[in-house]
Amino acid sequence: MNAVIFVSLLAVVQYMSLAALVGRARSAYGIKAPAITGHEKFERYYRVQMNTLELLVAYLPALWLAAQFWSPNGMAAIGAVYLLGRTLYARSYIREPASRGLGFLLSLVPIVILLVAGLIGVMLAMLESV
Amino acid sequence: MNAVIFVSLLAVVQYMSLAALVGRARSAYGIKAPAITGHEKFERYYRVQMNTLELLVAYLPALWLAAQFWSPNGMAAIGAVYLLGRTLYARSYIREPASRGLGFLLSLVPIVILLVAGLIGVMLAMLESV
Amino acid sequence: MNAVIFVSLLAVVQYMSLAALVGRARSAYGIKAPAITGHEKFERYYRVQMNTLELLVAYLPALWLAAQFWSPNGMAAIGAVYLLGRTLYARSYIREPASRGLGFLLSLVPIVILLVAGLIGVMLAMLESV
Repeated sequence: MNAVIFVSLLAVVQYMSLAALVGRARSAYGIKAPAITGHEKFERYYRVQMNTLELLVAYLPALWLAAQFWSPNGMAAIGAVYLLGRTLYARSYIREPASRGLGFLLSLVPIVILLVAGLIGVMLAMLESV
Repeated sequence: MNAVIFVSLLAVVQYMSLAALVGRARSAYGIKAPAITGHEKFERYYRVQMNTLELLVAYLPALWLAAQFWSPNGMAAIGAVYLLGRTLYARSYIREPASRGLGFLLSLVPIVILLVAGLIGVMLAMLESV
Repeated sequence: MNAVIFVSLLAVVQYMSLAALVGRARSAYGIKAPAITGHEKFERYYRVQMNTLELLVAYLPALWLAAQFWSPNGMAAIGAVYLLGRTLYARSYIREPASRGLGFLLSLVPIVILLVAGLIGVMLAMLESV
């Protein structure tokens, strides 16, 4: 399970780094808390963090639960694609929001695969134990 | 633990489905990223996803940790109520936000029960190990 | 692992309490769903909950994964600092957003320590198993 733990921690570190960029953008564009709007560039950074948060809460459980039934190293490899997809997503969204499609897909598809793998795994295990 | 894993994965799939509806609403109502306001119907879909995210991050840990101390099947059954509550919440919120109360309660109460069960379980275990 | 489970559950309970304050502020300041803006005091409560959500999704995995490699009681002690930091953050943010710095740091630093501990732990374990 070490590979699973490693990509899990990397995903959290990546997410915290994107959150740190929001903090920096907050002062760079003069957006005072509690406001979360007021400059489109700041909003891009904020949406990148929020979208990453939105996916992270699905990614980690999907990864951990799929790895209960299938090769942990295989699941970690699928999980690594998410990390690349998120990096591409963040870079392209901040440059130009309309170009975020590919990075989004590359981070969404691994989660869907892990979820389906987990569901198949747990349903087979429940059938076997009947 | 298979039942716990099963309802966990269903909750993530449900959440991702609600997120997909936000993506569809984004194009249906012409809300360009990074905006998250601009059409009240879009905002309903967005709030349903966000509120589900807000609960999911409490639901999964509460479910997993309660199942360390009490019957996993029993905890999974309580967790299944959350799934029904969220479905009702999403349907009623999108139709009319003011009617979201019952669905919200049916998804909140199972989380509170799981949290209390987890806390009682861990405190008893800590007392026993003194 | 009981101490780890205990501080995990406390963090979720704390987060749910902050979410309950948002619900109360929603009616106190007359903010009708799906709006999340309209009164600065409401927005403070909302941002406190959101920021806590943003950290909770990093805190729990960091705590759990660090505890796979290092003393669970030690990791739980670091995790307890986060609980204090969040309490201070919420109190100071609601009084005056600009004063949130210390509480924020006291909840951020334990997460960073747990993440670094987890990464060092898993990398040493991977090296050993080569």
